Amino acid sequence: MGEETIVYWVGAAIFGCTSLLFAVLDKRRQDEELLFRSNTFVSFITTISYVVMALALGTAVAENGQPIYWTRWLFYIASCSILTLDIAFIARKPASEKVEVALFTGLTMFCGFLASMVVTVDRWWFFALSSAAYIGMLYTLFKRSSDERVNVTSIMWFVMVTWSLFPVVWVLAPTGLGVFTTLVEAILYLALDCTTKIAFGLYISTQQHTTK
Amino acid sequence: MGEETIVYWVGAAIFGCTSLLFAVLDKRRQDEELLFRSNTFVSFITTISYVVMALALGTAVAENGQPIYWTRWLFYIASCSILTLDIAFIARKPASEKVEVALFTGLTMFCGFLASMVVTVDRWWFFALSSAAYIGMLYTLFKRSSDERVNVTSIMWFVMVTWSLFPVVWVLAPTGLGVFTTLVEAILYLALDCTTKIAFGLYISTQQHTTK
Amino acid sequence: MGEETIVYWVGAAIFGCTSLLFAVLDKRRQDEELLFRSNTFVSFITTISYVVMALALGTAVAENGQPIYWTRWLFYIASCSILTLDIAFIARKPASEKVEVALFTGLTMFCGFLASMVVTVDRWWFFALSSAAYIGMLYTLFKRSSDERVNVTSIMWFVMVTWSLFPVVWVLAPTGLGVFTTLVEAILYLALDCTTKIAFGLYISTQQHTTK
Repeated sequence: MGEETIVYWVGAAIFGCTSLLFAVLDKRRQDEELLFRSNTFVSFITTISYVVMALALGTAVAENGQPIYWTRWLFYIASCSILTLDIAFIARKPASEKVEVALFTGLTMFCGFLASMVVTVDRWWFFALSSAAYIGMLYTLFKRSSDERVNVTSIMWFVMVTWSLFPVVWVLAPTGLGVFTTLVEAILYLALDCTTKIAFGLYISTQQHTTK
Repeated sequence: MGEETIVYWVGAAIFGCTSLLFAVLDKRRQDEELLFRSNTFVSFITTISYVVMALALGTAVAENGQPIYWTRWLFYIASCSILTLDIAFIARKPASEKVEVALFTGLTMFCGFLASMVVTVDRWWFFALSSAAYIGMLYTLFKRSSDERVNVTSIMWFVMVTWSLFPVVWVLAPTGLGVFTTLVEAILYLALDCTTKIAFGLYISTQQHTTK
Repeated sequence: MGEETIVYWVGAAIFGCTSLLFAVLDKRRQDEELLFRSNTFVSFITTISYVVMALALGTAVAENGQPIYWTRWLFYIASCSILTLDIAFIARKPASEKVEVALFTGLTMFCGFLASMVVTVDRWWFFALSSAAYIGMLYTLFKRSSDERVNVTSIMWFVMVTWSLFPVVWVLAPTGLGVFTTLVEAILYLALDCTTKIAFGLYISTQQHTTK
């Protein structure tokens, strides 16, 4: 286990702090229509995920010898489904589409887990299945978006752009083509986690205080 | 890994196609009371399951030396719970019974997973627990069925008969008594999967277009 | 595998019987507002859990050489989330807090699983995370409890006291400091399981028949 361990402890510390931060921030908007204090749970689940990676519980070895921390994707099943459910709530999607968005997200991350755990060339089957579920999720989220508020659309574009960088990192990291090392991968995923979970969470928290 | 691998790739191809087919078919009945585009998800989850079996990720060896692909049952937890939830919706069961039907189905498949993964004589404990959960599911689904539409009952009889063939295959396959080989098992399960997931899905899709 | 195996078979027998008992008892109060026949499912899931421990599927070895049966905690994710959801229903919490209580419970037990499976000193990280989730669950359950019925509060105090003994056993057992053996641990957990799942279940079943 190499230098990426430090990155994972840093990630655990950051998300441990934001779990507490969101527990306080989310408390204030109890009367909102949102499902529950979702940001607290997303940060808390991500904290557990980073501790699991820091302790290197559950890793594989890529064909180029670099370690693969596939546990990340199992935690994404929960945390990212909560996030997209949150977006579906903000976009006032009907109940059936909320379920679909969450299920597609869960399947995207589950196939991402399989794609990361399998180190042979067969992993690309799961990359393809994960991409299919991801497209299904984006399609469900974006369709009929014309009759919705401008804010919602801007949130969804933000989500589409930042979330789509995860598979790009996956392809370039040792999980995919191995263009860069596990250390670079760990730093990039941490940056993306902070953007999609903390910055996004702060944005929707503030947004809703203003519009109330 | 033997000839059953071909059967699994065929299954993956079939369910990959029906995932797309149902994505189109289900789209048309957006205004129905059903929970969500359940057939698409059932087919998609089954596709992943068949790819996992084709790549032989997670197998055990039966006492007679035949391979056991126990991963199938983990995917059934999700796909079959969605299917029975669907049936509970069609049968207009109250919300509490919908939850019960889905939970009983999930427990049936989870015990089926344990029964398949354990290769000693102790596997029959889990077969018994799985059967108990299955009976609970059927009981919840069938009780007070007299005050419901004839169509619903015919769907439920179809489900009871076809679903009950799964444990029969399990008992005769290497997972149980080993009367036939893993190859025969793979073919029979594929036939049953097509019946309970594709034929059933097409039936309820068509049915609802007619009655609308 | 030592004498604790007998304790696990006794537990499996007890919870097998109470699954049937609650299936009959819960049936009578079909018209209640409760989510579903939760006690039956809690007992049934616990039965599976005890059979899995009796067969010693999935164990680790503590630093003092004693066996650790970590599978218990995976089953607690499901059974205890159902229990706290039940309590949240009785306490007439709003929907969002029901979800939070169930999620916090699930995370408490999931971190308990990680804390039990990891046998190095790092396990205390997960013990800390599990405790944090547990405090979050208790906080969500207890806040604003002043404007609720006396009965509800007495149930919640009962829950807080008995549930809080689980981490005490964990700390004193081979999973923690190793003050007593796995056999003593198995007996204590069985006593706590009977208290929190059977006694609690019978209490709320009777309570509701009286108040109806």
